[in-house]
Formats: sequence, C-alpha cells, structure tokens
Amino acid sequence: MPGHVVGLRCISCGHTYEPTPTALTCPACGDSGILDVVYDYDRVRLDLTRDSLASDRNLSMWRYLPLLPINPSTPRPNLRVGWTPFYRADRFAEAIGLETVYVKDDGQNPTASLKDRASAVGVVKAIEAGATTVACASTGNAGSSLAGNATAAGLRSVIFVPERAPQGKLAQLLLFGATVVMVRGNYEDAFRLSATAIDRWGWYNRNAALNPYLVEGKKTVSLEIAEQMDWQVPDWVAVSVGDGCTIAGVGKGFADLQACGLIDRVPRLLGVQAVGCAPINRAFKAGTEALTPEPENSLADSIAVGVPRNPVKALRAVRASGGDMLTVTDAEILAAMRTLGTTTGVLAEPAAAASFAGLAKARATGLIRPEEVVVGIVTGNGLKDVANSLKAAGEPIHIDPDLRALERALA
Amino acid sequence: MPGHVVGLRCISCGHTYEPTPTALTCPACGDSGILDVVYDYDRVRLDLTRDSLASDRNLSMWRYLPLLPINPSTPRPNLRVGWTPFYRADRFAEAIGLETVYVKDDGQNPTASLKDRASAVGVVKAIEAGATTVACASTGNAGSSLAGNATAAGLRSVIFVPERAPQGKLAQLLLFGATVVMVRGNYEDAFRLSATAIDRWGWYNRNAALNPYLVEGKKTVSLEIAEQMDWQVPDWVAVSVGDGCTIAGVGKGFADLQACGLIDRVPRLLGVQAVGCAPINRAFKAGTEALTPEPENSLADSIAVGVPRNPVKALRAVRASGGDMLTVTDAEILAAMRTLGTTTGVLAEPAAAASFAGLAKARATGLIRPEEVVVGIVTGNGLKDVANSLKAAGEPIHIDPDLRALERALA
Repeated sequence: MPGHVVGLRCISCGHTYEPTPTALTCPACGDSGILDVVYDYDRVRLDLTRDSLASDRNLSMWRYLPLLPINPSTPRPNLRVGWTPFYRADRFAEAIGLETVYVKDDGQNPTASLKDRASAVGVVKAIEAGATTVACASTGNAGSSLAGNATAAGLRSVIFVPERAPQGKLAQLLLFGATVVMVRGNYEDAFRLSATAIDRWGWYNRNAALNPYLVEGKKTVSLEIAEQMDWQVPDWVAVSVGDGCTIAGVGKGFADLQACGLIDRVPRLLGVQAVGCAPINRAFKAGTEALTPEPENSLADSIAVGVPRNPVKALRAVRASGGDMLTVTDAEILAAMRTLGTTTGVLAEPAAAASFAGLAKARATGLIRPEEVVVGIVTGNGLKDVANSLKAAGEPIHIDPDLRALERALA
Repeated sequence: MPGHVVGLRCISCGHTYEPTPTALTCPACGDSGILDVVYDYDRVRLDLTRDSLASDRNLSMWRYLPLLPINPSTPRPNLRVGWTPFYRADRFAEAIGLETVYVKDDGQNPTASLKDRASAVGVVKAIEAGATTVACASTGNAGSSLAGNATAAGLRSVIFVPERAPQGKLAQLLLFGATVVMVRGNYEDAFRLSATAIDRWGWYNRNAALNPYLVEGKKTVSLEIAEQMDWQVPDWVAVSVGDGCTIAGVGKGFADLQACGLIDRVPRLLGVQAVGCAPINRAFKAGTEALTPEPENSLADSIAVGVPRNPVKALRAVRASGGDMLTVTDAEILAAMRTLGTTTGVLAEPAAAASFAGLAKARATGLIRPEEVVVGIVTGNGLKDVANSLKAAGEPIHIDPDLRALERALA
C-alpha cells in the first residue's frame, strides 16, 4: 500500500484499521461497519497538482493514482477505464429551463457503465491479495464490469445472478468468460449464495459496499468532472441512487479534491431515486440514517434496490454537500431518456436517465435556480437495456416504398 | 474548403472536380464514378508532424484536421468521436498462434461503432452545405451514428430502414431524435425511397460510398493506429468487409500517412467477408473489379451486403497494400466473439468479430506468419446485437441457492 493511505476507518465506530488488500467491514460492527479509506492529504497534494495533471498524457482513471488506494506498481487491467466524455448540453438545458447543463457520459466506459471504475480497482486489489478468482453477486453492471476487467487482467471471475438477469448483461458476462451461476430465486438468494461460496473457496470479494476500495474507484468520476471543468466547481451534480455506493463515491471525490486544495468548495449533490423504490430518499427526508426496506417497483433496474447496502455513506455525502434528494416516476425517467437523447446524442439506460429526470424536477420545483451550473452523470449506456429504450423511443413511421405515401406521412 | 484539398478525382475516368460540400459521384460516370479526395501532401506535411501530434491534447478524430476535407472553422458535433482504445491482446494472440496482436476498439465510439467517424464528417459537410436535414438509408450503424451526430450538432435526420431493422439500432435511431421511416420491403426498397426523398426535399445525402467525404472520416482509424503504435507500422491490419467503404478508408489512411512521410510503408490489409455473402472476396480472387450480386446469408448483418456500393475502392486498397482476402463461416465468427471476449474483455458485434476470425484462419492457413505483428479492428460493440451475442455466449450454470449444489456444479 502506498504511503499516502493512512488506514481504513469504520464509519460506525470510528476505529481505524490497516489497509490490507482483503479488508472488508469493521470486525467490531459487522455489516454496518463499512470502512472508509483515509488519506494523508498533505502527501497527496505534493504528488497531485493542477500542473502535474495538465502534463499527464494518461487519459484514464489511473491519472489520479495518488488518490487511489492501490500500489502504483501492481499490474492493472489494460482496458481504458475513465476519462469519459464531458459535454456541454445547451439544448437539454433549454428543454428543462436551465442555462448550463453538462453531461458526464460514463456509458462510454469499456463495459458501458460507471461500474468499470469500481471493478478496475477491485481487480487490482485482488491481484495485491494474491487472488486468482474474483466474485460478486449482481444483476447487471457490477457483474459485467467485474467480468470484463478480470479477464483483461487474466483473472477468473464467478458472478452470481438471479434468474431474472437481463439478456444483454448476461451476454456480456458469458462473453467476458465469467463463470455465471444463475440462482433459482431472487437477488437476495444470489447474494447469500455468493457470500457462502466466497467463504468456501476464498475468492476475492467484490460485493459492493462491503469492499471499502470500490467507492474509491467510483470517486474518479468526480475528479474528472472537476478537471474537465478546469477546476470550476459546478453548483449541483445529479446522481441516481440505488445501493448508495455511487453517490458516496461522487461525494468522496469532491471532498478529496477540496482536502488537497485542488478545489475550494464542493458541489451540492442531488440524489435521485425512483418513486417505486426510494428507501434512501425516505431516510433522507426523515433526517435519519435508519432504513426501512422497500419493494423494487421501477423499470430502472440498476437503482431498484429495496435493501441498499451503503445508505449511511450515501446519506452523509448528500448532507455534507448541502445537497438534497428527490424521486422521479418511471414515466419521468422515460421522458428524460428521450429528451437527453434527442438533444445530445447520448443514450442513457433508465437508471442513468433518472438523474436527468431529477434535474428537470428540481428546476420545476425551484430547488435549482435557472442560472446554477449543473452536471448530470450518465452511469450506463442505453444499449444495455434495449427493451426499456424502446419504451422510451416512440414509434417509427411505417410506410410503403412510395414517395406519395412519404409526402403524406411527413405532411 | 481548406487549401490542402486539391479536388475530387473520379476513380473511374480520372477527371478531377471542385470539392464542393454537396459533391457526390462523377457526373460523367454515374454511380460507378465514385470520387476520391485528393490532398496536397506537401502542404499537409507542414501542418501534421509527429511533434505537432505529440503535443496535441485534442484526443479525438479531429486531431487530424490537416488530413480531413473540412473547413477547420465549421462547427462540429461535440460528441467525442475517435481516439478509441488500442490494446495489446497477448492471450488472444496465443489462442490463435500469433505472437503480437493488437485490438483497436472502435465499439467505444459515442454510438458504439466505427461509423461515427464517417457520420461526424458527413454532418460537418452538411453544415458547410447549409443543410439543416441529413438523410440516409441504413439497417444499423450508419443510421444510428448519423442520427447521434446530427442531433449533437442541432441538425434533423431522416433515416430510412427496412422492416427487419434490429431493435437495438432502432431504439438508438428514435432516441437520437431521427425521423425514422420504416419501409415495407427490403433494404433495396428503403435505399431507393431514400434517394427519391433526398432529391424531393433537398436533404444532405449521407448514403455511403456515393458521398466522397465519408471514407475520409473512416480513415482516421488508421491514423490513430499508426500513432498509437508510435509510428511502427504493423504487418497486417484485418478489417471486415461489407459495402467496402471501411476497408477503403483504412487503406486510404495508411496511404495518406505514407504520402506525407509519417510512415515509410503501409501494412497489408486482410479483408474478411462472411462465407454466406462474399461478392468482393470473389472478385478479388478472380482478379477483377466486376462484381456479381449475392444473397445475404450471414448473421453478421453489418457486412452481409449482397450488392456492395464501393467494391472498386475496396479492391484497390487491398491490392495496393499487397494484402489478401478470405471468408469465414458464421460458426467461426461466433467462436471469435467468444475468444476475443474471454481473452480481452472486449465485446465485438458479429461483423466486427469476423476480422478476428479471419486472423485465426489466416494464421491456420499460413498466410500470416507467427512472428508478424497484427492489428484487428472492432468496428462495432456487441451490445448492438444481443441476440447473436447470446448465441456466441454459451450457457450459465443453473442451480438452486445451495452450496452443495454449487460444489457439484463446479466440480
């Protein structure tokens, strides 16, 4: 472990542990004792400066090594993760009544989701731990990103999925060479079997939230946003929220940049959940960290998480930023997919479009003022979920091959 | 038009025309008179040097402006097209008996295919022509890339598709805001109606091959390969071949680099077609430029082109490079999808995997020697065609949520 990582601090009891590659949760607190990587920011700020970054030609997430909990000499998967496109989206902004909206398109990662950032770090930590097999339970992006990054690094992966796993993500898993264990039952059944099997065979555990290093990978999206904005901090960053790990990572990224003096304030985080499954939103509004499980009623499958595993980090990140949370309906999500696509040429999966639906709602309710500068994160590509993309898409014009018919249709 | 473009030369009669934005084919030769952009390479070599490129932070296809037929001051769509990842693929190489294979992953373009390079140039030329609407006939990648780049630039697009258009590509078209005209009939019906409608309404014509500027966009993939290899020229570049435009562009790119002194030789091109639809391969083997139409019997839909529109440029590019052509079966294509995915973490659509199947066959037949350095181009992402990806993928392990069952299944 490089010298700029001080340790792993339990978010529940505050105790600090050695940053071993296989560390998971706090032994004293159990699953509620999620660990957080603590850095020596005085050392980081010597190695990571605006000038050093400006001259760094490594345009991937690895340009931020001084703020990552990995040994720089550990071999890394050679997929190009990170440094995804960052677009100004004037017509989208106009459509929802804002002046300045930027789109961070993380659907342009190698396996087409932001999860690549977490899985890439997970694979590096697995190598540091001497593991040759990595494993997790997943219905989609976490699994496919782990399978892709593992095979790129020459590791084996075992992915546990419930029977309802979507076809596109299943194809990715199998074609990336994962051993795909399809469990007769729901996600919770798959998760429990994965935990037992990881214990039984000693595989490296990439189950989200339990592994403290994954959020550190996710935070690189914020480091990129800040750098791509030339260190001008936006007023708001909108993120869709499922188990809470992504928004926790986004918050950690901006907090880290402030701690090492690269930015002078952090943006407010707008956490967006689906109306049909919003336990973290409910806890946020109630001012508590205690969660009530909910059913998973949303077409935005990646964020339909009834029993989130990382609510505390998520809630603290939003609160620390002075941010807010809200919910959007499936209809609003589909409308946002359409508005984003037709104004920018970026195709977002439903969970990703939720954050843009949230921006529209936040503007409509007055939470965000028209002149505030806003960033939305596309966490996954719409090609991952063609069925719902088609629901959002509307219908083509059906005609005979005849010019008169076309003239009538277009009239 | 910038001063380094000399004109447009007919590949049939050799006459040279003014490079107007709306130029299509040679008025004297008709559809067989495809035009080729001619540059003043003495001027290009002053503006495009290894040093100028090394210090250029614009990591997209637009870093090669001196070799593109557009006015540098014309507004461009702001999607990040090009500068796609370039990976060394040692385990894939080992699997097919080669020492050095590189993968150029053009599935990482904004709409997930190499066609973005052509469509981006097409949109710029449309803007130069003063058009507000662009149009083409397409069953897939050409159309979705045009729709995405058009909307990013604020233009309207009209895309003509046959009824059998795949769902994923249809979703892209509609969500990028295209007017999608689904024609009752086959691709030829859609193509003919598009031509009539383009005449009728004066839309900008992005139909492949007819428009001389699109190949210039495609050639940027070769400029990137050469630069990403630090100007070491590979021995072979494998490209799948449908209507012939892509391999023509790949050949043009290397020829351009040689003409302006950036490389000292060109790689041999390996053109790969599907056994079930290989008219250009047949003409190549017969030593002619005359083509016989064929039925379209391959699951690799993007290259199943029975009446290719650009065979002459394609044949000349392969022959000028000292290259060769071969055909692969659908089974070999599916096997290549699997081998590529499981060894690299890159998911290729069938048409893209065909070039890697071709590399395996060329090694097996002795056409390529083990020590030769080889590049394969992934022209489209496998998420565009989930049905065929699943055919290639094999089956997961189906089990009850029980450790003993898993132990038996993994034994």
